Amino acid sequence: MTKHSTRNRPNTGAKPRPSRDNREADEGWIWGRHAVLAALGNPQRETRRLLLTLNARREIPAGVAFEDAKPDAISATLPDGAVHQGFALRTTAPAPEPLKAVTDPTHGVLVVLDSVTDPHNVGAVFRSAAAFGARAVILQDRKAPPLFGATAKASVGATETVRHVRVTNIADSLIEFRKAGRFVIGLTGGGEVTLAEAIRDHGGPGLVIVMGAEDKGIRPRVAENCDLLVSIPTTEAIESLNISNAAAIALYAAYAARSGPKV
Amino acid sequence: MTKHSTRNRPNTGAKPRPSRDNREADEGWIWGRHAVLAALGNPQRETRRLLLTLNARREIPAGVAFEDAKPDAISATLPDGAVHQGFALRTTAPAPEPLKAVTDPTHGVLVVLDSVTDPHNVGAVFRSAAAFGARAVILQDRKAPPLFGATAKASVGATETVRHVRVTNIADSLIEFRKAGRFVIGLTGGGEVTLAEAIRDHGGPGLVIVMGAEDKGIRPRVAENCDLLVSIPTTEAIESLNISNAAAIALYAAYAARSGPKV
Repeated sequence: MTKHSTRNRPNTGAKPRPSRDNREADEGWIWGRHAVLAALGNPQRETRRLLLTLNARREIPAGVAFEDAKPDAISATLPDGAVHQGFALRTTAPAPEPLKAVTDPTHGVLVVLDSVTDPHNVGAVFRSAAAFGARAVILQDRKAPPLFGATAKASVGATETVRHVRVTNIADSLIEFRKAGRFVIGLTGGGEVTLAEAIRDHGGPGLVIVMGAEDKGIRPRVAENCDLLVSIPTTEAIESLNISNAAAIALYAAYAARSGPKV
Repeated sequence: MTKHSTRNRPNTGAKPRPSRDNREADEGWIWGRHAVLAALGNPQRETRRLLLTLNARREIPAGVAFEDAKPDAISATLPDGAVHQGFALRTTAPAPEPLKAVTDPTHGVLVVLDSVTDPHNVGAVFRSAAAFGARAVILQDRKAPPLFGATAKASVGATETVRHVRVTNIADSLIEFRKAGRFVIGLTGGGEVTLAEAIRDHGGPGLVIVMGAEDKGIRPRVAENCDLLVSIPTTEAIESLNISNAAAIALYAAYAARSGPKV
């Protein structure tokens, strides 16, 4: 899609340059003390630039290359309003895992995000996935935010420790999971059973928890390919739970059930 | 504290004007479609100004006075970055309830926020309190954000339906609750028992759930005045849960236990 993408190829023999969209998704900024330190510790990421203030550099391990920067210069480099605390890292995205690495029920609990696009919600789901031992987060290739910026910050380091899978078609991957013997529950306002019932009857490492977008919920073909639609019971006073809160509740309930009666 | 606060009083006999701080806390802006419509429906609030775009005014009940405004003019009136969707309301704060209105165990489950100051977290706790039928949110008078702006928006209308109490001293109010026969649990990383155990043994309408700030947790004197310190069990992978997620989990667990085995 770039001006250079085809014209020079026959002459130089160079690999075609990725399109602008792909380049932007493959590389991005992370900011904030905790998010940057966690990303620097992730061998899956390659540092492109590291901007640090005088105070920030004291917290970076010796031998790591960085550029001196004033706070204002860092702010000018990042999106408006980014609270960077003197830390900004330009880095590659962590590589997604292939679907088959997480297909088997023995691989552990999965969270699937269907059309969830808000970076804060996606980051918060990674944080809960880390807290409650989920194996991976499954994202839709074209719609999910890249694991930089607000997503990384909201995850408080969990985008560096919880693996993710990017799939083209969410419904098709649910079919794969069920073929492999996993049990797939979809969280929705009008579920057939409650979360507690679903966890009691189907909880275990083979569980897959599907969450939809806050406004529209799980899309019809995704819902059709769940084993069971499940509701978190609430009073009549509120229309829906926040996605990150609903994910936290579902992951907590599954973790508590797996961990035995003491938990 | 204002220039006018004392000078004219002897002559006019007028009540002293509230200080600038108090006036600011008593009145503020709410923005966003859902938050403004919910606030307009709350008889506890008095409208001072209502700014609406051409599209927004179609959703306002007939007879409500408003000012025409272009989107840019609304943006210029509100804090930077406020996503207003054409709706901005200048309004009074809903009146807090007195502590004694919620002291008795029969009044229902309470959430106490000790030093939680982030408006998004406070708003999200109101939303979970509405979803899981808590009776009220207890806030510290001097530190909690006023129920406007980001707090109201994050609550998605719940600041209009869930009542709140403002207290000077959190620890002292816990003493009142326990005297009245309530059971007070404090959520903390190093709790004596798990959430599930605490809910199993002490769940019920008399439960009080105390949450601390994300970085520092519950303050020592507040912790001393809990009946039990309780942990939400997590893996080793993450240092702590987000406040709003922890509150959602605790309120869900208490609601599910109160609602019986089907939930």
